[in-house]
Formats: sequence, structure tokens, C-alpha cells
Amino acid sequence: MARRRNRPRGRFERPSKAGLPPGSAVYVGPERTSRVHVHVIDYDKDGVREFDDPSPDKLQSYRSPRSVTWIDVDGVHDVAVVLAVAEAFGLHALWVEDILNPQTRPKVDQQGELMLLILRSLHGATDVTTSEQIALVLGDGFVISFQERPGDEWNAVRARIRDASGRIRGMGADFLLHALVDVTVDAYFGVVQRVEEQVDTLEDQALETLDRNLPSKVLALKSEIAMLRAAAWPVREAVGVLMRGQLGCVRAETVPFFRDLDDHLAQVLDAVEADRERLLSAIELHLAMTNQQLNEVIRVLTVVSTIFLPLMFLSSLWGMNFKHMPELEWTYGYEAALGLMASVGVGMYVWFRRQRLL
Amino acid sequence: MARRRNRPRGRFERPSKAGLPPGSAVYVGPERTSRVHVHVIDYDKDGVREFDDPSPDKLQSYRSPRSVTWIDVDGVHDVAVVLAVAEAFGLHALWVEDILNPQTRPKVDQQGELMLLILRSLHGATDVTTSEQIALVLGDGFVISFQERPGDEWNAVRARIRDASGRIRGMGADFLLHALVDVTVDAYFGVVQRVEEQVDTLEDQALETLDRNLPSKVLALKSEIAMLRAAAWPVREAVGVLMRGQLGCVRAETVPFFRDLDDHLAQVLDAVEADRERLLSAIELHLAMTNQQLNEVIRVLTVVSTIFLPLMFLSSLWGMNFKHMPELEWTYGYEAALGLMASVGVGMYVWFRRQRLL
Amino acid sequence: MARRRNRPRGRFERPSKAGLPPGSAVYVGPERTSRVHVHVIDYDKDGVREFDDPSPDKLQSYRSPRSVTWIDVDGVHDVAVVLAVAEAFGLHALWVEDILNPQTRPKVDQQGELMLLILRSLHGATDVTTSEQIALVLGDGFVISFQERPGDEWNAVRARIRDASGRIRGMGADFLLHALVDVTVDAYFGVVQRVEEQVDTLEDQALETLDRNLPSKVLALKSEIAMLRAAAWPVREAVGVLMRGQLGCVRAETVPFFRDLDDHLAQVLDAVEADRERLLSAIELHLAMTNQQLNEVIRVLTVVSTIFLPLMFLSSLWGMNFKHMPELEWTYGYEAALGLMASVGVGMYVWFRRQRLL
Amino acid sequence: MARRRNRPRGRFERPSKAGLPPGSAVYVGPERTSRVHVHVIDYDKDGVREFDDPSPDKLQSYRSPRSVTWIDVDGVHDVAVVLAVAEAFGLHALWVEDILNPQTRPKVDQQGELMLLILRSLHGATDVTTSEQIALVLGDGFVISFQERPGDEWNAVRARIRDASGRIRGMGADFLLHALVDVTVDAYFGVVQRVEEQVDTLEDQALETLDRNLPSKVLALKSEIAMLRAAAWPVREAVGVLMRGQLGCVRAETVPFFRDLDDHLAQVLDAVEADRERLLSAIELHLAMTNQQLNEVIRVLTVVSTIFLPLMFLSSLWGMNFKHMPELEWTYGYEAALGLMASVGVGMYVWFRRQRLL
Amino acid sequence: MARRRNRPRGRFERPSKAGLPPGSAVYVGPERTSRVHVHVIDYDKDGVREFDDPSPDKLQSYRSPRSVTWIDVDGVHDVAVVLAVAEAFGLHALWVEDILNPQTRPKVDQQGELMLLILRSLHGATDVTTSEQIALVLGDGFVISFQERPGDEWNAVRARIRDASGRIRGMGADFLLHALVDVTVDAYFGVVQRVEEQVDTLEDQALETLDRNLPSKVLALKSEIAMLRAAAWPVREAVGVLMRGQLGCVRAETVPFFRDLDDHLAQVLDAVEADRERLLSAIELHLAMTNQQLNEVIRVLTVVSTIFLPLMFLSSLWGMNFKHMPELEWTYGYEAALGLMASVGVGMYVWFRRQRLL
Repeated sequence: MARRRNRPRGRFERPSKAGLPPGSAVYVGPERTSRVHVHVIDYDKDGVREFDDPSPDKLQSYRSPRSVTWIDVDGVHDVAVVLAVAEAFGLHALWVEDILNPQTRPKVDQQGELMLLILRSLHGATDVTTSEQIALVLGDGFVISFQERPGDEWNAVRARIRDASGRIRGMGADFLLHALVDVTVDAYFGVVQRVEEQVDTLEDQALETLDRNLPSKVLALKSEIAMLRAAAWPVREAVGVLMRGQLGCVRAETVPFFRDLDDHLAQVLDAVEADRERLLSAIELHLAMTNQQLNEVIRVLTVVSTIFLPLMFLSSLWGMNFKHMPELEWTYGYEAALGLMASVGVGMYVWFRRQRLL
Repeated sequence: MARRRNRPRGRFERPSKAGLPPGSAVYVGPERTSRVHVHVIDYDKDGVREFDDPSPDKLQSYRSPRSVTWIDVDGVHDVAVVLAVAEAFGLHALWVEDILNPQTRPKVDQQGELMLLILRSLHGATDVTTSEQIALVLGDGFVISFQERPGDEWNAVRARIRDASGRIRGMGADFLLHALVDVTVDAYFGVVQRVEEQVDTLEDQALETLDRNLPSKVLALKSEIAMLRAAAWPVREAVGVLMRGQLGCVRAETVPFFRDLDDHLAQVLDAVEADRERLLSAIELHLAMTNQQLNEVIRVLTVVSTIFLPLMFLSSLWGMNFKHMPELEWTYGYEAALGLMASVGVGMYVWFRRQRLL
Repeated sequence: MARRRNRPRGRFERPSKAGLPPGSAVYVGPERTSRVHVHVIDYDKDGVREFDDPSPDKLQSYRSPRSVTWIDVDGVHDVAVVLAVAEAFGLHALWVEDILNPQTRPKVDQQGELMLLILRSLHGATDVTTSEQIALVLGDGFVISFQERPGDEWNAVRARIRDASGRIRGMGADFLLHALVDVTVDAYFGVVQRVEEQVDTLEDQALETLDRNLPSKVLALKSEIAMLRAAAWPVREAVGVLMRGQLGCVRAETVPFFRDLDDHLAQVLDAVEADRERLLSAIELHLAMTNQQLNEVIRVLTVVSTIFLPLMFLSSLWGMNFKHMPELEWTYGYEAALGLMASVGVGMYVWFRRQRLL
Repeated sequence: MARRRNRPRGRFERPSKAGLPPGSAVYVGPERTSRVHVHVIDYDKDGVREFDDPSPDKLQSYRSPRSVTWIDVDGVHDVAVVLAVAEAFGLHALWVEDILNPQTRPKVDQQGELMLLILRSLHGATDVTTSEQIALVLGDGFVISFQERPGDEWNAVRARIRDASGRIRGMGADFLLHALVDVTVDAYFGVVQRVEEQVDTLEDQALETLDRNLPSKVLALKSEIAMLRAAAWPVREAVGVLMRGQLGCVRAETVPFFRDLDDHLAQVLDAVEADRERLLSAIELHLAMTNQQLNEVIRVLTVVSTIFLPLMFLSSLWGMNFKHMPELEWTYGYEAALGLMASVGVGMYVWFRRQRLL
Repeated sequence: MARRRNRPRGRFERPSKAGLPPGSAVYVGPERTSRVHVHVIDYDKDGVREFDDPSPDKLQSYRSPRSVTWIDVDGVHDVAVVLAVAEAFGLHALWVEDILNPQTRPKVDQQGELMLLILRSLHGATDVTTSEQIALVLGDGFVISFQERPGDEWNAVRARIRDASGRIRGMGADFLLHALVDVTVDAYFGVVQRVEEQVDTLEDQALETLDRNLPSKVLALKSEIAMLRAAAWPVREAVGVLMRGQLGCVRAETVPFFRDLDDHLAQVLDAVEADRERLLSAIELHLAMTNQQLNEVIRVLTVVSTIFLPLMFLSSLWGMNFKHMPELEWTYGYEAALGLMASVGVGMYVWFRRQRLL
């Protein structure tokens, strides 16, 4: 019987392009049909300009030495759009391959003056966790972001940009990059909290010994924790590279913000690790409880059997049909038999207690 | 059934400020209503001056090249007070965010001439362990301390300052910082000792096989040990940074004192690790004992059943009502039957012993 | 009874040459009889020239400063052929030994201007996984490849070379090396995916408690995962050496491609690790399910025995043949007995529920 | 019931000085009443001079550029004596604190020209292992040693000093330090060997399945191994610092001797690790044996029950008192019944064997 | 009962020299009586000269700038011989101590122009594995080898030296050192292969659930694997030091040969690790199989008991001797009773299947 569980997205799938040369621009994620939008925000201290789906040849023109340009591509399943953007800003062919494959491992990479940051965003504060790939390219005065599906987390960043008094308006493109990564990582906390609540519930249920579904609930939660960890761990590695200022693209004044981000990720990973530990402890507790109850059940069985089997033997003995069974004829034979049985029963019980088996 | 255990404070909680820009000054800890006090001690070799709740604009004036100023803020739930202090001494916005979030991971950070140290204090020498965040800022000639609630551990430090003959009076602000961290870490020993006593008790109880509550006691102790470890580990990391003198704020003559502190933390962590090991061993012991007893119980059941079932079969055989059962008519039929049964019973018993099953 | 399982190839076998001096040219792999072919492709931007089984003394002549020469030896069991090629290009005796031993651990080594790369190729997208050794030698303007058996993975590379517009035509020998390693590593994904599907199936089967074959299936899958890991891990180490550009043979422009390869291997290893974790979880789940069902079975046994044994005792009591058993003579003796038995049975059942044993 | 086991000394105890400033000279070990002796040996190539309990102000006078002075303090519970020695040689207040606390973690520390080495000595070649703290201070031309109790291990060193032909007479104070550490570490071997013998015994006992005390013996041995490891590990760390010659106090010609010491400690730790592994294996073996025997016992129970229950059913069937039971009247009814029972019994047995359950 | 297993040699034994100064020349291995032979081979490109048991004062004279001298001491239990050789070549006292103690941990050490290499040789391709210590000293133009017992592995090296065309004749003393280590390490492969075959056998036996001896076989194999690992691991560390050319004694042209050796050791350790994993898996498989069979046995017991106990109750009910049991008088009472019993039995069976307990 092949019951299919609803598997979380973001698992390992074979790129359908084995044999193609590296750097081939082929989309290998799940099939999608929605139209891919490109949204451009160009801002500086003095103002904000927004454009929807500009023609690719115009993209470059938005760049200016004084303003920060954010090109947001909300879908990577339309290869043509991604390629157009990539060509306009001179992205390496291998980067395009990474952007088009939603299974790329989170990482940070640098080529010339450009930097690529691959992240995973997590959604699931109220439901099953899903995970998506986000690719961010940082260049001199611009950030290009690629998401699998349009998300609403970045609306907060857009609002801060539109707010004339926001600090972000006076900072460079590296600060915009930080802002985008920051809201993405902030969303992890919601997922962690829901997982934590589920572990709480499971800890309580582990004390119940008769729940048949506990093992599969544990399995599901365990794989969710594993997914969380698999998403957060390489993101922290990548943020660590930025935090240590090893890449020239991040200015010294933005570094403390990435250090702050690293603290957040450390906190997420600590919490995930603690949840895993607690889950394991809960399972052990459940096993111990079940074991203990089994012990008690078997003890009851043993005591009842051990007391009644000898008694039954005696009574069936005197139920035999032999002709010459003198005790059957005794006047108080029945009473004597009952007395004997009573003492055997009590004797067994006392022996059990003495042996500390009861 | 959702039995709620009393969960220890200091667990992971979602900051209610997802989406806000980093560095936002919002308090995200548990709700509190008590008034936030600010206590200032300004001392040098010659004297001590103390002030309660000074106006923020006066704070800076206490600083002088020759004296050490300790500003103690006993609560972080009043954002206005924290912000006033932070502005007076020029703390970074991200630091203020860390100070206001009681879930910040212990760490050490440096910005310009200031150093931030985030610790956790543990209370619980006699009771359930609770943990609180302590933030210490070290600057040139001053220390600012932020606690979640006013604690009485630091009274010892205050007494040493007021004592004209104390060494602390002649040392700098970095020595004051050490003194505060030192008494905080010293309190860990009390918690460790109580945990150790509980593990002792549990080791004894593990030899008892009929205690139904043991598994949940183990779970509780395990999570307490995990909390202790989670508190002490990053504190040691932070102290390690100070000990190696990597930050300029700590003078060479104070470094040995931080090295001493590091030794204490190593001792705490060793003890915690040893307790965890012993707890695991105790659980294994308990499992082994329970298992062994189960074995014995089942062995009793088997022996009794295996001896009496054949005997009962024989006696019920001769209790059948067939007309022609010649042995029933024999003169010594009954005695022969009893003899046969006795030999079957003894034979089974001997076989059991031979097979080493008994 | 010695049931032989079909063991995967690629296990540890004793080289039959213990005692021989190091660098001895002796083939120590499984016996093979097929003829060893040598295929040469010489290409540059302008054209491609191919030769089959050229005489060894001609091999050197194919080298030219402007073209890239790929000598593909499809079998290492004919020592004479391998030695002829090795001598023509001046390979170290120890390298020849490594090439002739199909158990060599994947590694990268450099001697003068030559570089040796030992890999393992994996086959098994649809079947049991097998693994083979591949040795690649990179020199100035040439690549020599040694495979145990002719594989068809490299046909894709040959096609790209023959295609006049392919990027590979304009790149050097180090890019050819990368292309060969890349298609070899791409084949890992197929194996990983099949393993993943098998783990999926096993996770479903683990919920079934009566499958007798599950343990041996788990063992087989576990050893396959171990093999996968053992193949991929040292390959990643070797690629890491190339990626960090520590060896002079790889040009800076090819380094990003090796970094890309490293990402792929990291992805494979992550997936393998995740599969291993999931397999372990599935086993635990199965154990827990089996345990729980055993519990229920024993509980049924206990309840039935504990209710019926006392009832049987009572009925066999009144089946005794004592002469003086007054209750047997009562008018409603039988009904009273039935009533007593019913209340005993119900009483036991209620007690069980009260004790939470049922 | 709170059975108290005899706990090994050297466990974590709360310093009774929480709140005191660091560097306070307070003894925090177990209470002792014996008098503290100070023994001084001053030697060079030409002669040996010994003094008992000299007055503290004389201590310094023993130092001379040409001789080596060994001040041995055999007890640290008399704070006055320790302080007098410390002051005479200028030891740091924190060192005095470490010397007075017998729970200090083994370590090496340097202040100016002095070096402090904290060790643990182990005793227990024939009995329960106990551990004591040893503090050694190395200065220019002198060694000060502090022991908790006078031990007799160092008599061997004293004998070597008194022997005019011994190498030690011609070497410096660092060689004396090595000699003292060397005999202390040599004593570990005795403890390791006893533990090893106990593990041997336990391995044999693990094959016995009916030993009720095995689990608690294992627990005791496990905690002894943990103590051994906890003592040897930080000592090796400290010796490693000396071995690498990082501290100026140790001359190049003495370094090989510390390297030799490091080898000994590596051997001790290897042996401890191996013992731990073997102990775990022995426990697993015991569990497996017990499990297997339980299996056999349950199998016996099942076979006997499964064969006799149907037989008993048949015989009690024909024991019923229905009026019309035609088979009871048959001439060979009894024999037929016996035959049927025999075939049922044999049939069950054959079925069991077929199912490989027996 | 103290059954003694035959313990493998090479276990931890207490040096019987505790208290002696370091560098004391005392033999601490097992007692031996055979005579210690010294065999000298002196060779260069042009010829080979061999000497048996030369007088110690002649040893030095064999050294010449152009030839390589190999002094092979086949026994270390004759302290006089070892000391004579050591003095002739100026070995450090600590080295002599290491050579005389057959429990020394494998290592590499350098003093001046001399290098000491301690190895373990393993024997056991067909039998129980034994291990011996080998000490090699490399100097300018000579190698001194110390074995516990004369082995025949080095005959292959002697043959290669005597063969005028062998490469070894033209190489230096460091190559001779490599040759000796190489044949020693090659012998590990035989042991690994035998262990692997035993693990294969055990994997097959693990599927059998009734083998009583399996647990102790596993224990024996496990300790053999541990010994193999304990021998190979530090040897690899030592070879690693030579491979990285950190010691001046090894010439650049010999380094690749040590790198090759390191690969062999990596292969041995990989195989050992894989065997350990497979052994653990086999044990788990066995446990799972046993567990599953136990489940089935208990299920049979439960089904049989649960079906027959109610039936027996019914039949013993109608076997009671009450006077007024109306149904006993019915014409078809017996048939009705049989029918009732049949439906109870079938009903129980159906219920079991419904509950998925059968």
C-alpha cells in the first residue's frame, strides 16, 4: 500500500538537464504558468521612481551614480525574462543557471564587481512549512532580486523606501541588500515558533501511552525541523562571509547590520537544535512510558495466571471421574478443598510481594 | 488532553516586530509594570558618590577622567529610559535593539571605543532555574548595566566599592566590568550544584523499577541541564574574546582576571556535561533494571504456565464423561494419575533448569 | 546457512601484489577479457580530428601548442596499453599503479606539469548502483582519461566537441577536464534520486508493521547510501583542491566552473545525508509502530486471560465431584453462579479501565 | 528510598565563597586537621641540603643562582602557610586562590617569570580511585609544590635527588618539574590497569543473563572511567603547552621529556577510550543475551500454551454434562478422542516448526 | 563463572617501571627467551655486503658516505644488544625507552639528524589478529630496525636489495625506510580483508534469529576492528608528518612514495570504518529480526489464548454439577452449545483481523 504523504516542497529533484554543458540557461523548477513581472524602484535621498515591466534595454538606463536601483523579478520560470535581465547587467552564465534552478544551495559568490547571494525564504507561521529560493545580485548602485513567486514580505521594505524619512533612503545598495535578507530571515522566526509549539504539544502527548498516531507525527515534525535546519545553515554561512567583510561590495558601515543578521540566524539555529533535542527527549519519554505500562500489563497477566492456574488445576483434579477418590467422600472434603485453594492463592500473592515482583 | 507544564523562562519567543527595520527601539520581552530605576555610582580612590534616577542630561556630567562611573538600569521595559541612557552615551541603534530584546544571544561586540557584553544570569539555587538577560556597556571610565529585574547579586559589588580599602577602588572601569560578570557567573555554581543533587537523587531512584513518574522527572531535569548549557556556552565564548585581549578596552592587568573567569566557566561546563552523562547513564540503568525485572516476571509466568497447563490437561482428560474409560475403574487409578502428574511437573521443572531458562 | 547477497561492486579487495615494490605496474581489478580501445580526439577552434587505436609512438605527435588532445583509454586491464600511454606522456610509476588499481581512493595529485585526478563514476538511475574508477591526467594541451569500461556518459562531451559552435572548442585542456568531471558528477544525481524514491517507499512501508522483509531492505538501502557517500566525499575533496586554484594547471577562468561543480557535490552530499537521516527516522518509526502494536496485542492477551481465568476457576470449582457441595442442590444455584461470574467479569473489566491499562 | 552510594571524591562542589572578590585567599576544600608540613630540598651537582618547616622569611634565602630549590608544601588547608610561601616568592593572588581550591581545573598559566601548573594525581591501583589536586610553581631555580595530602609517589624523586650519580642533579628546575609531573602521571597507569581488569570481569559477567547487579556495576565503572578521563584530559592540554615550548620557562633540552610525557598521556587516554568502548559493547552484549533468552522463554510459553489450550478445550468439551452427547456412548469413543487430541498436538508442533517459530 | 576469552595481544599493560626516571633502559614487554639476532646489509649501486651479529664496535664502521646500511635487530628483549646498537649510533635515552616498551604509541620523532618512527605490524590474514611493535631509526646513510620477533615480511625487501636491477639499490636510506614501512602497511590489507569476510558471514547470520552465539561473535569482531583502527590511525598520523616533508630526513623524490603510503592507510581506515558501520547495521538488523519474530510468537500466543479461553470457559460451565441446569436436558443442547462455541471462536478471529492485530 503506497500511502503518499504530502511532501514539503524544496526536496532534492534531479535537474532534467544532465548532459547539458554547465552554464546552460534552462529552468528546472516545478512547472508554473503565471506571468513573470519585473518591478523597478529607483531611489535616492530626494525621491523614488517606480516602473513596471520595463523593456530590458531600458534597465541599464536606470542606473545612475547617485541613486540605488532595485530590480525585482517575481518568477524565474520565464527563461527569456531572466536572460534579458542577466544580459543587461552582465551576469555570469553559471549564475543564470543557479538562478534558474530552485534547488541551488544557499551561497555567496563574487565575480568582478558583482556579488550573488542565494537564500531560501521560509513560509509557514500557521501551516505546513514551504520554502522558496531567492537570488540577490548586488552591483554598484543596484540590487537585482529573483523570487520563485511574488511574496509579500518585501512590501515592508518597499514601504520603508517610499517613506521619505527612512534611514534606507540615505544608504547604498548594500544596505538595501541587507534589508531584503533581513526581512527574509525574520520570517524564519515565525516558522521556528510554530515548530516550537508543535514540539510543546508533542511533549504533552508523549505522556499519553495509547496514541497510535504519535510516531508518524514525530516523523513529520522531525523532517520539518531538518528542513528548517537545512535552509538556515548555509544561509548563515553565506551571511558569515558578508559579515567578515571579505567581499568588497559591503561597506564597513553596513557590516554591523550583517553581524546583527548573523546573531539572528545563530538564534534560529540554536532554537532549531533545542527543538530537535526536545523532540528526541519526548520520544524517549514516550518509549519509557509505553515500556513501563507494558511492564505493568504483563505483571498483571503474570499475577493472575500464576494465582489461578494452580487453583484451576486443583479444582479440575477433584473433577476427575476416578472411582476411588476417598477425599471426595469426606464430610468436609469440599470445605477442606476450598481452604487449601484459598491458602495456595494467598501464598502465591505473598510470595510475589516478597520477590518485589508486584 | 493538554497538560501544561510550567515552562522555564528564557525560551524562544517570536519578536513581535517582524517587518520593522533593524535597530528599531521596541521592547519585546514579557510585559512588566514596575518602575525602571537608574542608579549611578561614581567612585575613585578617594571617595564614592551615589545618585538615584538622575535626569538623563546629567548622566554625561558624571564622567570624569579620574573616576569610574557605574550607571545601573534595573529594567528594560521602559523604552524611554533606555533610549535616554543610550543617547547620552552614544550607543549604536542595533545595541539598543539587543538590550531591549531579552532573548539576545550572549555575545561581545565593539563599536569605536565602546564595548557591549550580553550575558545571562541564572537564579535557582533552591528552586526552578530562571534566567535573565544582562547587558553591560564598557566605555572610557564608565560601565552601564541593564538588567531585566533588579537583582541582589550586585549588592556585593556595591559593598566592595563603598569599602575604602577594596582593590576595586583603585582599578579602572574594565575591572568593574569584570567584577559584575564575576558575581553573575559565580551564581551559576549554585544552580549547577542543585542540578547535581537532583541527578544524585535520580540515580538512586533509577534503581527502583516501579516509579511511574521517573521518565517525566528525567525529562524536566534534562531540559534544565540544556538551559544551563545554553546559557553558559555563549557566555564563555564572549569571555574568551575578552580574555585573549582582542578588544582594546580591557587592560593587560585585568586580563588574568578574565582568564580566571574563563576557568570558572570551563568548570561549570565540565560539570554540566558530566551531569548530562550521568543522567543518561541513570536512564540506561533504569531501563536495564526494568528490563531485567520484566524478564523475571515473564519467566515466572512461563514456568507456572508450562508446568500447570499439562497437569490441567491430564486432570481434565480424566474428567471426561466417556463411558468406556478403563483406567477410571482401576483400584489405584487415582493414585497412579497423581503420580504421573507429579512426575510430569517435576520433569518440566528439571528441564527448565537444564536449559538455564530458570 | 550462507545466503549470499549480491554485493555491490567497488568494495575493498586485497591487492594481489602485497610484497611487490611500490610503483609496480600490475592490474589488480576484476578479471576482464574485452579488448582495450584507445580513442584520440584532437581539436581546436577550427577543427576536430579523431583517431582510433593509434600506435603508442604516434601519441606524442598529436600534441601541438594550439590544439587540445583527448586520449581516452577505455579499459585498464591491459597493462601493456596503459604502460605505453603512460610512457609516451611521462607519467610517474606510482600514478600507473593507481590507474591500474580500481580501488584507489579518489584524489588529486601533481607531479611537475602533470596532474592526476582519480574519480568514481556511479551508475544506477534505474537499478542497483555500481561504481567504477575514472583516472584523468591533465597536461599542457592534453587530457588522458582511463575508464574501467567504456561508458556512454562522455558521448555528450564528444558531441559538444564536434559541434563547431560549442564553447568547449575555444577553451583549453583544463576546461575539457572540467567537462569530463562534470558529466560524471551529474550522473550522481540520478542515483541520488533513485535512492530518494526508495527511501520514500520505505517510509511508507515503515507504517506497515507486518512486513517481514523490511529490516533487510533497510540494510541494503543503508549500504547503498554508504557507498554513495564514500564515492562522493573524496571526489569533493579533490574538486576542492582544484576549486581553490592551488594547482597551477587550472586557469583562473575555469575556476568558477570547478566552484560550480563543488556546489553540485555539496548538494549531492546534503541529499545523501538527508536520506540517511530519513532512513534512520523511518526505522525508528517502524520500531515504534511495531512496539506499539505489540503492546496492544499483549494488552488483549492480558485482558482476556485476566477475565476468563477467574471465571474458569469458578466453573471448574462447581464441576468438582465432592459429595457434599450444598450449593449444587440449590434451586437457583446455577443462576446464582452465572450471576456471580458475570459480576466478576464486569468487575475485572471496570478495574482495568480504572487503572488506565485498557 | 534513598540509598547513598559512596561517591568518589573530586566531584563538583560549590565554592563557599560566592560573592567574595576574585583572588580571595580562602580554603574551600574538605575540612582537614592534620598539620601542614613544608619540606625544602636544595641541591646542585655537588650536594643536597634538606630543611623541615623553615620559617617563611628564610625561604627566599635558599635560592641561589647555582642550586635548584624544591619547596614541598604537603597540605593546603592551612591558609597561613600557603600565604607565607606565596608571598615569599611573589605568587599572584589568583594563583593562591587556585591553589587553595582543590577543584581547580588542571591548567598551565604564566605570570612574568613564574609558571603555575595545576594537575590531578590519581590513586587507586588496588581500590576505589581517588583524585587530588597538585599545584606546581616553577621559577628561576626553584619549584614549589602544593599537595592536598602528603603522598609517597614523590619519594622516588627525592631518592633520585639524593643519589649523587642521578642525572637530575645536573639538570635545572624545569627538569625537576618534569620529574614530579612524570611520577604523578605514571600513577595513572595503575588506575587504568585496574579499570581494565574490571572491564574484563564485566565482559565475562555480561554473558551471564541472570545477574541482577550488573547494571549498577556498569554504572559505577562508567563513572570511574569518566573521572579518569576528566582528570587526564586537561592535564594533557597543559603538558601540550609545555611540550610545544610556548612558555620560556622550559629549556629546549627538557622539551623532549615533556613530549615523552605527552605520549604517556595519549596512551592513557587511548586506553580509557578503549575501555569505555568495551564497556559499552559489553552492555550491548548483555542486553542482546538477555533479549535472546527472553525470546526463548516466551517461545516456550507460546508453544506449551498453543499446544495444550486446544487439547484442554477438547477434554473439557467431553466433560460437559449434556444428556445427549452420542460420542460419549461409543465403544471406542475414548480412544478416538485420545487419537484426535494426539493429532491436534502433533499438528500444532509441526506447524510451529514449519513457520520457523520454534 | 569466569570464562576467559583469548585476548588479542597488544593490549594496555602497566609498565613495571613506575617510579624509575624517564629514559631508563628497561624492557617491559612480554617475557621472551629466544636469542636476539642482528643482521646488517650494506649496499650501494655496485654491490651488497651482509653480516650476521657483528660486534657492536664494528657497527659504525659499516657506515660510508656512498652506501646505505640497514641494521636489523630482531628482538628487543635483550636490553644489552639494544643498548649497544643505540650507543653506537647515538640514540636518545628516551628513544631507547620507547623501543624497549612494546606498547609505545606509533609516532615519529626527530632529534638532530636522526629520526625515529614507531609502527605496529599486524598479522592475521588467516587467523586471530596479533600486532607487534616496529621501531625504525633513519640516519644519514643508515636505517636501524627493531622488531619484537623476526618476521618474514621484510624478506621481500631483502630480495629487492639483493637484486642488482632493483630501483632500491640506487636510492638512499629514506627510500629503504619507505620500503620497510610499505611492506608493513601492505600486510594490513590481509587483515582488513579477513575482517571483511567475517563481517560478510555475520551479515548472513544476522538474518538467522536463533543463533545463540551471535552476540559474542559480534563482540569479538568489534574488538578486532577497534584494534585494527587503533593500530592504523597513529601510523597514518606519523606517515602524514613524513609525507608533508616536515622533517629534513626525507628527500623530495621520496615524498611521493610516502604520499602513496598515506593513500593506502586512508584506504585501510576507510575500509575499517565501513566494516564497523556494516557490523553495527548487522546487529541492528538482527535485533529487528529477533524483535519481529518475538512479535509474531506473541501474536500467536495471544490469538490462541483469546480464542480458546472463552471456549474453555463455556465448556467448563456446562461441566458444572448443579442440579438444575435446564439446557443440559434439551434434546439438541449439545449441538446448540457446539454451535455457540463455533460462532464465538469465528467471531474472535474476525475481530482480530478487523483490528489488524493478526
